[in-house]
Formats: sequence, structure tokens, C-alpha cells
Amino acid sequence: MKPRSGWHVPMSDIARNTINPIRRIVDTIELNPHPDKQMIALSIGDPTVFGNLEPAKVVVDAVVEAVQAIKFNGYAPSSGTATAKEAIAQYTSTPEFRVSAKDVYICSGCSSALEACITVLANAGDNILVPRPGFPLYQTLAHCIGIQTKFYDLLPERGWEADLEMLDAQIDSGTRAIVVNNPSNPCGSVFGKEHLRRILEIAARRRVPIIADEIYNHFVFPESEFYYIASLTDEVPVLSCSGLTKRFLVPGWRMGWITVHDQNHVLKDVRVGLQNLSTRTIGANTLVQAALPTILSDTPAEFFSATLQLVQANAEIAFKRLSEIKGLKPVMPSGAMYMMVGIDMARLPEFETDLQVVEAMVTEQSVFCLPGKCFDLANYVRLVLTVPQQFMHEACERLAQFFADHYVQSDADPSAEDVAVGRADLEPAVTSDVRRVAGVGAD
Amino acid sequence: MKPRSGWHVPMSDIARNTINPIRRIVDTIELNPHPDKQMIALSIGDPTVFGNLEPAKVVVDAVVEAVQAIKFNGYAPSSGTATAKEAIAQYTSTPEFRVSAKDVYICSGCSSALEACITVLANAGDNILVPRPGFPLYQTLAHCIGIQTKFYDLLPERGWEADLEMLDAQIDSGTRAIVVNNPSNPCGSVFGKEHLRRILEIAARRRVPIIADEIYNHFVFPESEFYYIASLTDEVPVLSCSGLTKRFLVPGWRMGWITVHDQNHVLKDVRVGLQNLSTRTIGANTLVQAALPTILSDTPAEFFSATLQLVQANAEIAFKRLSEIKGLKPVMPSGAMYMMVGIDMARLPEFETDLQVVEAMVTEQSVFCLPGKCFDLANYVRLVLTVPQQFMHEACERLAQFFADHYVQSDADPSAEDVAVGRADLEPAVTSDVRRVAGVGAD
Ligand SMILES: Cc1ncc(COP(=O)(O)O)c(C=O)c1O
Ligand SMILES: Cc1ncc(COP(=O)(O)O)c(C=O)c1O
Repeated sequence: MKPRSGWHVPMSDIARNTINPIRRIVDTIELNPHPDKQMIALSIGDPTVFGNLEPAKVVVDAVVEAVQAIKFNGYAPSSGTATAKEAIAQYTSTPEFRVSAKDVYICSGCSSALEACITVLANAGDNILVPRPGFPLYQTLAHCIGIQTKFYDLLPERGWEADLEMLDAQIDSGTRAIVVNNPSNPCGSVFGKEHLRRILEIAARRRVPIIADEIYNHFVFPESEFYYIASLTDEVPVLSCSGLTKRFLVPGWRMGWITVHDQNHVLKDVRVGLQNLSTRTIGANTLVQAALPTILSDTPAEFFSATLQLVQANAEIAFKRLSEIKGLKPVMPSGAMYMMVGIDMARLPEFETDLQVVEAMVTEQSVFCLPGKCFDLANYVRLVLTVPQQFMHEACERLAQFFADHYVQSDADPSAEDVAVGRADLEPAVTSDVRRVAGVGAD
Repeated sequence: MKPRSGWHVPMSDIARNTINPIRRIVDTIELNPHPDKQMIALSIGDPTVFGNLEPAKVVVDAVVEAVQAIKFNGYAPSSGTATAKEAIAQYTSTPEFRVSAKDVYICSGCSSALEACITVLANAGDNILVPRPGFPLYQTLAHCIGIQTKFYDLLPERGWEADLEMLDAQIDSGTRAIVVNNPSNPCGSVFGKEHLRRILEIAARRRVPIIADEIYNHFVFPESEFYYIASLTDEVPVLSCSGLTKRFLVPGWRMGWITVHDQNHVLKDVRVGLQNLSTRTIGANTLVQAALPTILSDTPAEFFSATLQLVQANAEIAFKRLSEIKGLKPVMPSGAMYMMVGIDMARLPEFETDLQVVEAMVTEQSVFCLPGKCFDLANYVRLVLTVPQQFMHEACERLAQFFADHYVQSDADPSAEDVAVGRADLEPAVTSDVRRVAGVGAD
């Protein structure tokens, strides 16, 4: 071996290929908000940042009790304690939809659950289908280990339902899973039973398992209903990912889980794989695991409905006000905690990309939304709806001002302002663009 | 594309290649202890299982306070909060050895810290050097993503110091890191300053970075001293992994961290990589992060010394008693919480492997030790030394009985009983053997 002449310590390919656009922007962006205006961050899906949403008292008490018991400090089995698994199984089950403790794998947050599901189903060179717009972590987790992703579109004009033809057409011999995120981040949309059945029909016919990202389970406005996709099939194997993060308002606790749904017993191998993967980092915090039975069974229904009321009221405020603003096209959500708002870039000649618009909104109005490109859909911004109501009002007024300042009416076509921001207008949102624009490598 | 004729959902290569021998044995072994004897598990490195070792009151109170503050439920930055990083930097620093908050990456347990360090430094096809006997997780984390491992031996006759010639000889053009675990699991050995300097000298000359698994930092008997390996070099880049798990007696809390030591500024790229990797699963529980400043600065010195006293007393009891037993050859530790005990397999003709001995010790004596093969060294068992003292005595007596029942004096060579269990006696401990014997795939 030739002696090494100096220190050369590059990062590995996996590390280099681990790109999480949201976290990268949020952890590293240099924001320059307007000095006279308090910053309103409608950017991260963290319902706790404004301090208006707290976990239920019973939840806090359950963790305090677990800490004070001095009984839950040891290692748990790597995929979780039997008691916590049983609690999750009961929480997820209905009379018609049975989940048992042996189907549960506890992970450090829903992110770790997704990491395990993607890693267990696909090899480098294989592909998984992911929604566009969609939560970018699916790509982060796939690409870093050489798994490709292929998009299927969600259609704003159909309330963000999946383009089923495209979904079907994207499946090829290398497709190992379809990621279905319902309710959706970033859309706030909730799939109906029929639509879920259509997706299942394709998965069944093409024999592709589903990874269901159901972290927003039950997080739907009263007019909508949430269905676990696995509850609607007796054929398609489903790995469902969820956790405490959103519904229980405790993202920092890192408590997530996978439930395996496998009526045809085709996931025996995959279960072994999930168990194997859990031994790499040995699961989730045991104090939270110990509190889980109480958390999942004793959180009062009013706690959940109070959160939803706040989110829905904000959705209505934003939808009404933003609909009046020339250049904006909000899409009303049915759940989760987000709203996508289309931007008519053709009428904002000063800006080339939605990221530039987002930056200018911070500089001029101290309102921070995430650019659609974070979710692979250009010409949109995503608003988080968990802020205190007065901030929602204030943010809308500032956006009104921003667009009054920048929106340019077309002379040639005075009615253009009414044209919907449709897919045809949109340049393809390419991840590598996002990286460049977000300043990857600067860190 | 040819339609798939049936459901075929194999696990991926990564999942299949994720083999953690300890967790696999511990999570899945079927133990049949003797019905009349209470089981004494000297098997897992979990100091909490016997209930005799509890975290310090100040630690418990700090977490309760963090929970009750209702201020630490949101997402932290993916590699940890600034406050927790600062606390770790101060905890690690001495006047001569400075660590700053920007050098700290918080992870979900030391296992996740090791995963990040191995993943960030090596690509598939590269190799890292790991100690034999050693903690098997290094191999688990490397092999699953195609990184090879090469062993360097620790020598029982030299108090488990590294075989430096072998270490040097094992380095090749594909070597990306040397894993140095000090104090050692499973040996309980503590490297002196001189020995650490010799390892650093090789690393410097061959320009190979070090991954220091220092989870047992400061966990040494009063006669020994612990040195961070990074504190003894101004040249070799070191990623040091540690956490609360062992010293603070809270393995289930999953709180670990990496400190980056890089006086020559050759790890810029690697720091970006560690940051990238942290975005996959977004770090450690925020309640524990919030409590970290208090935990690290206010835990009383007596708390640590009480634990060490118990471990050292057990080490002395076991060493003394087991030294008297024909067929056993204990090696006295200087720290951590383990003792390795050589087994003279040649005098136990009923058994072919140390795993068979371990199983028989459970069946006949209800004493459960881990077989040396878990650590890639055959013909040893590892004892955990954190049990209550009366169990340590009792376990030793039962082992005396076991060896009285099975040890066969050699007629041909009556002095053979005194022959040390040296390396020459040992069949090479091959990981694939461990897998077979431990019943991989059965789960
Ligand atoms: C759709 C979706 N899946 C998963 C996650 C990650 O959840 P966790 O914080 O539990 O890892 C999020 C968080 O924003 C999300 O929006
Ligand atoms: C040497 C060594 N490193 C790392 C670990 C893992 O520590 P953690 O539980 O913090 O992941 C252990 C646990 O036994 C260990 O013995």
C-alpha cells in the first residue's frame, strides 16, 4: 500500500446523498425578517412553536409518573416493550380492523418508522413511488441508500387526489412500494374511502405493497373521515407508520411506530427485516414507552377536537382572505395542519422561483412559509395552520400587502388574474434545483 | 413489464445483513432455567435490570422538571439543541482538552452515534478495523451497508491491550477508520496513556481516523485513569461516541452524542455528513435534552463512585472465586462493568462451543452469561458485574458446581488444568458461526 501523503477524509456517499430539504432550510437558512415586524413562522410542521398548543395534562402526568417510578430506565426490547406494543395495537384497532401487539414495531419517531419501512422493502436500484407534492423525507431516506423514487402527482383541482393513471403507469418491475400519505403533508387533504380503494386496486393488481404514512391519522376536520388504508383491503400488504408527534402535539418526544398489516401472510420475511433493523439503534425512549398506555387511552376526545377546531378556523380564515388576493390561489384542506397556496408566478415578474418569493416575504413582511419546491411542486407555498388566530389574520394581511406591492396585472389579458394556477403552468420542481437554491454545502 | 403472478415481498439486503448477535440472543433466545433456581442474568450490559442501581435523584428530578415545564415538546434541531450541545461540550472539556458546542452531534443513544460515525466515514467496499473481542454492533452497523470489518486482537495476557503489530498490518488502502473502544466491552479493560499514544502513532502514520467508542468514559476503578483518546493527539482526527447510558444508568433514555475532534481541520466534509445524517430521523428525545445541563453538571461525584465500588467489589469477588475453579480463567477488569472468563473447552468434552456451555449453565444452574462468540472470541464467557453482591456470590458458587459436574481432568497431563487459556487454544470465532448457533432466521 502506498502511504497516504496527507489527511483526506471525505464523507461517504450515503452521508453526501442524505439531503433533507426541509430540515436543511429550517436548520440553516439565514432569514432577514423586517426589523419592524414580528416574525410569523408558518414554516415548520411543529404545532408547539407558538406555545398555544400544549399536550394534554394526562399525557404530561403519565410521563412524569413514568420518570418517577424509576422502573423504566433500562433497555427495552429493540422494537419496543410488550406493554407499549399492546397499547398501540388497541389504539389502532376497531371492531372490524384488528391489529395485534406482534404487528407493532416501535421506532424513534415516525421518521425512523419510515426509514425502516423504506429500507426493509427496497434495495439500491429498486424504486418506490412517492406523491408529488409530498413530504420530502421519503426521497431523503430512499436516495441516500440508492433507492430511486418516482413521482405520482396529487391533483389540486381534484382536492389533491392521486393521479391514478399516472400511479399505475409509474409502476415498473423495480417498484417495491407505493408511499401513500394520508392525511397529506403538505396538502392537508384527506382521501375518501373510494379513492383509497382505487389506490388499493392498483396495488393489488400490480402486487406492490403500500407504505402508508398515517402520522396525521384522525387529524381531520369533522366533515371528513379518516380511514387506515389497511382497513380497506384484505389483499394488499401494508406497513403503516404513525406516532405521537402530531395528534398528541409532542414532536420532540420521538415516539413513532409501524403496524404491519398482512392478511395474506406475505410479509414474514419483512417482519424479520424490521426486527433486524430495530437492533441497529434500539428503539425509542423508554419513559415515553412506559407512558404510552395511558397516553393512548386516556387523552380526552375534547383535546383532539380543540386542536382541530383551531386548525380548521385558521384554514377558513386563510382560505377566505387569500382567495381575495390577486396572485394567490389557496386550496382548502380537510385535515392535517397545512394549506397549499398557489402563486401566479407569471404576474410576479420580479421573482423567478417560489423560493425567491418566500425570501422576499420574510424580508418585507416577516412572514415565513415553506416554498413549494420543498415538496417538489413549484409555484406554491405551504402554510402551517397551528398558529394563534391573530397571527393567521395578521399573516394574511401582510401577504395581501406583499402581493399588492408585487403583483403586476397583465395588460394583454386583463382576465388572466382569474386563471387557476394549474399544473400546466408549473415548471417541474426538480430536487437538484431545490438543493442549489437552498444553498446546500454551505451548512 | 410482465405482471407479477403472486405476492413476493422479500426483505432488502440491508435488512437481511443487519445482524446484531447480542440483541438477537437477548430478544429471541428461549431460555430454560432450572426450575428450582432463581435465574441470575449476567448477560446484558443493562445496569438497571436488578433494581439495585438507580439514576441519581437530581437526574430524575431534572427530567420531571423538563416534562412539567411544557416547553420542550417541540422539534429540536436535528443534531440537538444548542443548550444540550453546550452542556456536553462543558462536560467533556478539561482545561487542556477543549470541546465546543459546534463539535457536538446529539443522537438517539450511543448506538446511533456509532451508526452515524461508521456511515459517514466509509463506503460499501471500504473497511474499518474493529477490536476482537469487541462489541458486535460495529460489525452490525458496517456490514449491513456493505462496509467490511477487519479485526485487530486484544490480548488477554496483556490485560487486553491491542496487538499493535496486527493493527498496523491490517490497515490497507480501503481502511477508513479504526474503532477504539476504551474502556472495553466485553473486557472491562482500560487503556493507559502510553498504549493509547501507540495506537495514535499508528493512526497518524497511516493517516486513518479513529472512531472512539467512549461510552464507558470515566467508568474506571480508582487505580486506573480514563483518557479520551482525542486528548492525546494534535494530529489524528477522532470521532468520539458517548452518552448517558452507562455512567448515568439510563440505557432506555436513548441519549448519546458524538464529539468531533479535528485540530487539523480535515473533518469539514465529515461534519457536513454528520449533520446530513442527523436529518434522517431527527435526533434524541427533547425532554432528556432539556434536562442534560443539570444531569451533566449536578450529578454528585458520590453517585459515580458508588456504582464503581459495587462493580469493583463484584469484580474482586468473581475474580477470586472463579480463579479457584478448574476450567475457568477470569481476567481482572479495571473498569466498565464486565469481566471476561476463559473456558478450558478441552476439559469440557460434553460441549463443542461456548454457546453450548452457556445454554447448559442456564439449564442446570440458572446462570446466564453471554458466550464469547457474541464478541468474536470463542472459549470465553462475559459476566456483567452490576448485579447485587449476593447474586455475584451465588452465581460463582453455581459456576463452581457446574464445572465440578463437567470438568474432566486429563489423565495424560495432570498439570494441564493450570495451562492458561491462551489464544493458541482458540478456534477462530467466525461471525457466521455465531449466526448459525444463535439460530438466526428463526427469530
Ligand atoms: C407526513 C409526515 N410524515 C412523517 C413526519 C415525521 O414525523 P416524526 O416527527 O414523528 O418523525 C412528518 C413530520 O412533519 C410528516 O409531516
Ligand atoms: C461498547 C458499547 N458501545 C455502545 C453501546 C451502546 O450504547 P447505547 O445504549 O447508548 O446505544 C454499548 C452498550 O452496551 C456498549 O457496550
